[in-house]
Amino acid sequence: MLLKDTIIALATPSGAGAIAVIRVSGVDAISIVGDFFKSIHGKNLTKQKSHTIMLGHIVEGNKTYDQVLVSLFKNPHSYTGEDVVEISCHGSQYIQQQIIQLFLRNGCRMADAGEFTLRAFLNGKLDLSQAEAVADLIASDNEASHQIAIQQMRGGFSNEIKTLRDELLNFASLIELELDFTEEDVEFANRDQFKDLLHRIQNVLRRLIDSFAVGNVIKNGIPVAIVGEPNVGKSTLLNALLNEERAIVSEIAGTTRDTIEDEISIGGLGFRFIDTAGIRETEDVVEGIGIRKTFEKIEQAQVVFYLVDGCSLFVDGNHLENLKVEIEKVKNQYPLKQLLVVINKKDMLSEVNLSTINLQLATALLLSAKTGEGVEELKNQLLQFVNTGTLRNNETIVTNTRHYDSLIKALESVEKVNFGMDDGVSSDLLSLDIREALNHFGEITGEITSDDLLGNIFANFCIGK
Amino acid sequence: MLLKDTIIALATPSGAGAIAVIRVSGVDAISIVGDFFKSIHGKNLTKQKSHTIMLGHIVEGNKTYDQVLVSLFKNPHSYTGEDVVEISCHGSQYIQQQIIQLFLRNGCRMADAGEFTLRAFLNGKLDLSQAEAVADLIASDNEASHQIAIQQMRGGFSNEIKTLRDELLNFASLIELELDFTEEDVEFANRDQFKDLLHRIQNVLRRLIDSFAVGNVIKNGIPVAIVGEPNVGKSTLLNALLNEERAIVSEIAGTTRDTIEDEISIGGLGFRFIDTAGIRETEDVVEGIGIRKTFEKIEQAQVVFYLVDGCSLFVDGNHLENLKVEIEKVKNQYPLKQLLVVINKKDMLSEVNLSTINLQLATALLLSAKTGEGVEELKNQLLQFVNTGTLRNNETIVTNTRHYDSLIKALESVEKVNFGMDDGVSSDLLSLDIREALNHFGEITGEITSDDLLGNIFANFCIGK
Repeated sequence: MLLKDTIIALATPSGAGAIAVIRVSGVDAISIVGDFFKSIHGKNLTKQKSHTIMLGHIVEGNKTYDQVLVSLFKNPHSYTGEDVVEISCHGSQYIQQQIIQLFLRNGCRMADAGEFTLRAFLNGKLDLSQAEAVADLIASDNEASHQIAIQQMRGGFSNEIKTLRDELLNFASLIELELDFTEEDVEFANRDQFKDLLHRIQNVLRRLIDSFAVGNVIKNGIPVAIVGEPNVGKSTLLNALLNEERAIVSEIAGTTRDTIEDEISIGGLGFRFIDTAGIRETEDVVEGIGIRKTFEKIEQAQVVFYLVDGCSLFVDGNHLENLKVEIEKVKNQYPLKQLLVVINKKDMLSEVNLSTINLQLATALLLSAKTGEGVEELKNQLLQFVNTGTLRNNETIVTNTRHYDSLIKALESVEKVNFGMDDGVSSDLLSLDIREALNHFGEITGEITSDDLLGNIFANFCIGK
Repeated sequence: MLLKDTIIALATPSGAGAIAVIRVSGVDAISIVGDFFKSIHGKNLTKQKSHTIMLGHIVEGNKTYDQVLVSLFKNPHSYTGEDVVEISCHGSQYIQQQIIQLFLRNGCRMADAGEFTLRAFLNGKLDLSQAEAVADLIASDNEASHQIAIQQMRGGFSNEIKTLRDELLNFASLIELELDFTEEDVEFANRDQFKDLLHRIQNVLRRLIDSFAVGNVIKNGIPVAIVGEPNVGKSTLLNALLNEERAIVSEIAGTTRDTIEDEISIGGLGFRFIDTAGIRETEDVVEGIGIRKTFEKIEQAQVVFYLVDGCSLFVDGNHLENLKVEIEKVKNQYPLKQLLVVINKKDMLSEVNLSTINLQLATALLLSAKTGEGVEELKNQLLQFVNTGTLRNNETIVTNTRHYDSLIKALESVEKVNFGMDDGVSSDLLSLDIREALNHFGEITGEITSDDLLGNIFANFCIGK
């Protein structure tokens, strides 16, 4: 399906750079650009082969816009599946806009956000979940989210879903055929085989649905809360974690520091440290309000560092005992959270005190946020907390809330079909539930779409993609 | 001349966009990228033709970095004159950096600022003034500076300079040959023809040097000062000029407002409004300090708007007379500045008052910055003030201070040669001055360079160009 209009947009980030790429796609892309492109060697753009590059100038009358490279992609062998011309021009915003405006005046229109990818989807170059992966890929900022996006873009679980959908569709047809012969009481669809298929589908769906817990935190960063009384060294610890990574990051040209303010990548995973601004309120942590505030923070986290000033344990009072009580409270309240007691200021503790801690709080991790001693162990512990088994085994992981919702709904429908068969419901009711399951499958890969859905998905893209 | 190492850099602006382009140049560019590029169609990068594009993945072991397009340019048919591979990847900074780091680990090194263009120069793809034009082109933000940069990049005056230099070099050789035959008193170089050449050279140099006055302001924006007493409407006028243009600019996607804060493009020319923050000090404009402050501002400007509140002319006192005296003072002090008296608040003036102004200040321009009436006329006036005849006639314009300096020095040397011949100085002294002129010519086009000079020029480039 080739759309009638030809779209144009800047594909590279706006701002100053050596070059910029302007992308033109549509039935008239080659002829429109060809009208204003003068090849250095007198070549005619419309007569060139696909996947070739020409050097020349963009010229209108006696005005030369720029010396450019023009890359040609002929349909269907392009990103969108349409004729595509990419113009690589000098990086001045003035030039970019002049060239874009020239083509806007001559038959192109400005592309909407994500419209190139939308066209790729409409032309069957990508399914919907692959198209969504393109946006995820552009947004990825650590290894794990990047790998998941790459996998999804290369097919990911949509192939698996498609196969199951085809099988289910086959059974649906047979069961619907039975409806035409209700009076003869025939069964075209082998019920045992069908049960078998439903079972397989349920297993796949459950596995994918389960993977979302991991996938979602990987995509958005694994939330970590650092809780503890004031002045135990939360900021210093955060800085120790951040700074070290910053040092690495700053070796990479072009990496801005802004993006890692409180999100860091450790071992290829993104960790998002939950705002610790409210820590003052946790001052009376043993009593009422303090605990509630701490709990609110823990609520949002998947990993909790319970940070303690090691020195404070050895001044007057039963601090060590109180701490143990406190930790038990947190553990009882949130049995599923990964909790790590971190004893800070190791560098200021005597051998005797260190031994006491090791004895009384065997699972606690001792470190000095100031000197950096033990920070590496903390990172390793952090990685161990996260269930990345699925990721390491290269299994499919669902990261998209839309997919997750559709998978849940598909599973519900399949379960209904299953129960229905056990209860011996009629074929017509059965086929309704199967159709519903098929629809939810189709929503993921885009066989079933609505304009609203497409509008929603592609509006989140940037223009030029 | 092919340099031994292979360089890599991001060529597109850093930040989020649909795609990013990574440029690799050098003897090993194709083989290094080829080791990690897996074509979708199983093609081998090293066996492809120049100026072709391949779709594939960047893969290291079992890790896929991204789906990319790879463009191949084989030496000498590339920007740098070396083998060049351009990798068009998804716009995530994470992906860009991962890919760059992969190639840094495998034989590339990070390119210095401007190093791709430096290599293009060293390999004879561009002369030095063309290379400089690349930076100007990227920095251009209005039509005039853009056109000048394009012209310079396409050869501009360097061809003219080269021809003259060749002719001069020819004479230099003949005169130096005479030195070998001093005892025989021969003249290989025809003195009349030589005088003729010197005359032509002087004319060209003077024309180019004169063009710098226009070229420089075009490149950097034409400085305009708005002077006047407080509350006459300077800010409103500036906003009226800016806002209108902003409205136009904001229709263009991706144009940031920051860059036009106090610089606007009118009729394709950049106008730079000189900071009007100090206007309070001009309060007692008829007396001492006030005038000096005003004059300081005028000093930096090429065009001066002398803004007056029309209403203030018709309250008690000899305001109109004072104004005329004041204007005369400015005119006498700066006879060469383009001065325009602008009477603001036209909308609040009676017919009678308007007539009085027209009668008494015939050359003044009446407008209302508030309603916008007359602002268009002001713009037209502004354009007429600027001597763009040279520009319109498509003549060569010098915009680069370095070229200007070399041209001045070349002219001085040529004049010395000329005087020397009139005074009948010996051939050996003559040839020294000719050599000096030749050197200054060569500095412009890059035949004569030093590492310092090259370092200076290319350090101002962005990395990736």
